[in-house]
Amino acid sequence: MSGDARRLAYAYLSRVLQGPSAPVNELVAAVGVEEAARAVREWDLPAALQRRTEARRHLDTAAHDLELMDRIGGRLVTPDDEEWPTWRMLAFGGAEAKDRECVAPLALWVRGAGVLSELTDRSVAVVGTRAPSNYGEYVAADIAADLASRGWTVVSGAAFGIDGTAHRAALSVEGATVAVLACGIDTPYPKSHAKLLEEVARTGLVVSEYAPGTAVTRYQFLTRNRLVAVLSDAVLVVEAGRRSGARNTAKWARRLGRPALAVPGSVHATTSTGCHHMIREGEARLVTTASEVIDEAGPLRLPIDATDSPRPTDGLVGDQMLVYEALPAIGSRAPSELSEASGVPIAGVRAALPMLELAGFVGSDETGWYRRRDL
Amino acid sequence: MSGDARRLAYAYLSRVLQGPSAPVNELVAAVGVEEAARAVREWDLPAALQRRTEARRHLDTAAHDLELMDRIGGRLVTPDDEEWPTWRMLAFGGAEAKDRECVAPLALWVRGAGVLSELTDRSVAVVGTRAPSNYGEYVAADIAADLASRGWTVVSGAAFGIDGTAHRAALSVEGATVAVLACGIDTPYPKSHAKLLEEVARTGLVVSEYAPGTAVTRYQFLTRNRLVAVLSDAVLVVEAGRRSGARNTAKWARRLGRPALAVPGSVHATTSTGCHHMIREGEARLVTTASEVIDEAGPLRLPIDATDSPRPTDGLVGDQMLVYEALPAIGSRAPSELSEASGVPIAGVRAALPMLELAGFVGSDETGWYRRRDL
Repeated sequence: MSGDARRLAYAYLSRVLQGPSAPVNELVAAVGVEEAARAVREWDLPAALQRRTEARRHLDTAAHDLELMDRIGGRLVTPDDEEWPTWRMLAFGGAEAKDRECVAPLALWVRGAGVLSELTDRSVAVVGTRAPSNYGEYVAADIAADLASRGWTVVSGAAFGIDGTAHRAALSVEGATVAVLACGIDTPYPKSHAKLLEEVARTGLVVSEYAPGTAVTRYQFLTRNRLVAVLSDAVLVVEAGRRSGARNTAKWARRLGRPALAVPGSVHATTSTGCHHMIREGEARLVTTASEVIDEAGPLRLPIDATDSPRPTDGLVGDQMLVYEALPAIGSRAPSELSEASGVPIAGVRAALPMLELAGFVGSDETGWYRRRDL
Repeated sequence: MSGDARRLAYAYLSRVLQGPSAPVNELVAAVGVEEAARAVREWDLPAALQRRTEARRHLDTAAHDLELMDRIGGRLVTPDDEEWPTWRMLAFGGAEAKDRECVAPLALWVRGAGVLSELTDRSVAVVGTRAPSNYGEYVAADIAADLASRGWTVVSGAAFGIDGTAHRAALSVEGATVAVLACGIDTPYPKSHAKLLEEVARTGLVVSEYAPGTAVTRYQFLTRNRLVAVLSDAVLVVEAGRRSGARNTAKWARRLGRPALAVPGSVHATTSTGCHHMIREGEARLVTTASEVIDEAGPLRLPIDATDSPRPTDGLVGDQMLVYEALPAIGSRAPSELSEASGVPIAGVRAALPMLELAGFVGSDETGWYRRRDL
C-alpha cells in the first residue's frame, strides 16, 4: 500500500535525520517522500545532504519503529495525515525560508488519545524554569488551570518545575495538554515524569520529532522548543532565570510570529530575572492572568487563499495593507505592536504576517517583523 | 528697577492665573510680562483671557507674596532667572502647542538651598501609590537611594507612601531631592509632611507653580504631576493601583517625550496592578534597578540649533531622519520603541522628537508620537 510505503519512508527519514533539515524538506517537496528516502538510502545525493545523512542512513528501523508505536499506543503523524497541523506549519515559511534553523519537522511521533490538529487548534505554551519559586509554581498552576478549563490546550515540555506544574494543572481540571519531548516518546525524560506523561497521553498527547529510543541532547532541547512554539498560539514564560531554556522557547515564538508572553514578579526574585528582561527588551509582553493570555493568543486563522497576492505593495488590501503600512521603514516590530499601530486585531495581524512574508513583502528575525528593503 | 517690576508682574500673574494658561503664555511672549500684567489688571483682553482672569485679577498681592518669600527663605523663579530650567520647558513645545493642557508654567515658587536648573539637570521622578505594600516601600527606598547616591536628583510629590519614601531615601544618602507641591510652598500638603519638606528644603528644593497660601484642588494635583514629569529625565512608578495619580504623572512623561518607567511585582498584588497595566499596554517600560532607570533616563540634551529645519521631510538628516523614518505610517510609538526601531540611542530619540514636533513633522498624544498626516 502506497500509504504504508510513504509512512515507512517518513519513519526512515525521521530516524536518519534525527531533527529538522531544510535540505531534506526541500528534497521531499521536490521529489516526494519515497524517492527522497530512496535517494538517502542509496546516498544518491548532493554533498550538503550527504554530510547530514552519512552517519545514520544505514539505520533502516522504520518497520520496527512503526510496530513499536502500535504496541505502545503511538503513531507517526505525517503531512499525509488529517491530524497534521498543516496551517501551523505554514509559520515556518516553506522550504525557501531564509532562517535555516527555523524548519518544519518532517513528521511527528505522537502517543495518546488526543488528535494533534484538534488539540493544537487553540493552544498556549506554558513554560519556565526547572527550579521555580513557590510564587512561580502557584501562578503557573493558576493560569494553566484557567486556560485549560476555558478550552485551551496547555502545551509544555514536561520538564521539572513550571512545565510539569502546567501539565498537572491542565489535567487537574480535566483539560487538554500536550507534552513535547526532546527524546523518543517511548523513553520519557525526565524519567521521574514517566507517570505524568502516561496521564498526559490518557487524554492529550506526548509528541516528539525524534524517533523511538532517541536520547536527549542539548541541541534537541532547542529544536524541541521550536516545536512547543509552533504548536501554540502563544508562549507564556511564567518564571525564568537569565539563561533559561524558556527564553529560547519565547524566542522561537517571536521567530514564528506568535506572541511571547511573560509573567512579572518581585524585582528581588532571580526566578523572575529572565521574564523581566524579556518584557523590558520588548521580547515578551507582560501578562498577569489567563484572560490576558487569551487576549494575546486570540483565534489564529490564516487566509490560505491569499497566498498569491500580487507583488507590488500597492496591490495589498485590507488587513495585509494595514499591517504592512504599520511596519516602520527601519527596524522591526512585534505582532502586538503592529496590532496597536495598525488597528488590526492581533489575530488579524498574525494572519496577515505569514501571507505578507510568503508574498515577499516582509521578513522576520529575532527582533520581530520588518519590511523587505529590496522592494 | 525693571527686574523687580518684571518679577512683580510674574508674581501678580501667577496669583491671578492659579495654574498654567496657554493664552497668557502667548500674551507674555507677544507683549512682555509687564504689559501682559497691565492688560490683565485693566482687563484690556480678548474674551478667552477675560474668562480666565476675571475672578482673581483684583488680587494684586505680588509685593506681599515676594516679601513672604524673603521671610521663609523662598523665591519666585521666572524665565528671567539663570536657574530657570529653560531647556526642560522646551518639551512643552512653545506657545503654539496643540495640547492646551500641556503648557509651561509662567513662573515657579521655590524654597530651599538648591538651584532649580542644577538640581533638575540629572533628575528622575520616583512616584507611586499613597498606600504601598512593604515590597513597594522597600523598592522605592532602594532605587531612590541608589539614584541619589549616584548623583541623580529624586523628584517627587511629597505625598504619603511612595513619594515620601523616595524623598526620605534620597535624604538618607545625603542626595538631592525636589518636592513638587500642588499648593503654595508656605502651606505644605500633607500637613504631617511639614518636617519632611523642611528637610527637603535644607539641601534641595520645594517647588510649586501656585502662589503662597493656595490650597490643593484635584485639578492642581494633575497640573502638579505635569511639573514633576517635566522637571525629570524619566518618571518611575514604583507601585500604583489601577487609578493611581502616579499613572497620571507617567502619562505626562509620555506627552512630554520623557520615558515612563514602572516596577513589576506580584501578579496578586493590587498595589502593582497599575504598573503591570502600564507595562502591558506599552505606556511604561519595565525596570527593576536604579541602573536600568539611569539607562532609560540617560543624559537628555536638545540640539537647540536644529529648530528651524526645513519643512520637507527629505531635508531631515541624522537622528531626526532616522527617528522620523522609524515612525509607522499609521499609529504611534513610544520613544523607547523608536530607539529600538531607529537604532538611535534613547537620548538621541528624546532630543530629536521635540525638534521634529517644532518643525511640524510629528505630533504626540497619550499613546506616543505619530507622523503628522497632513504632510
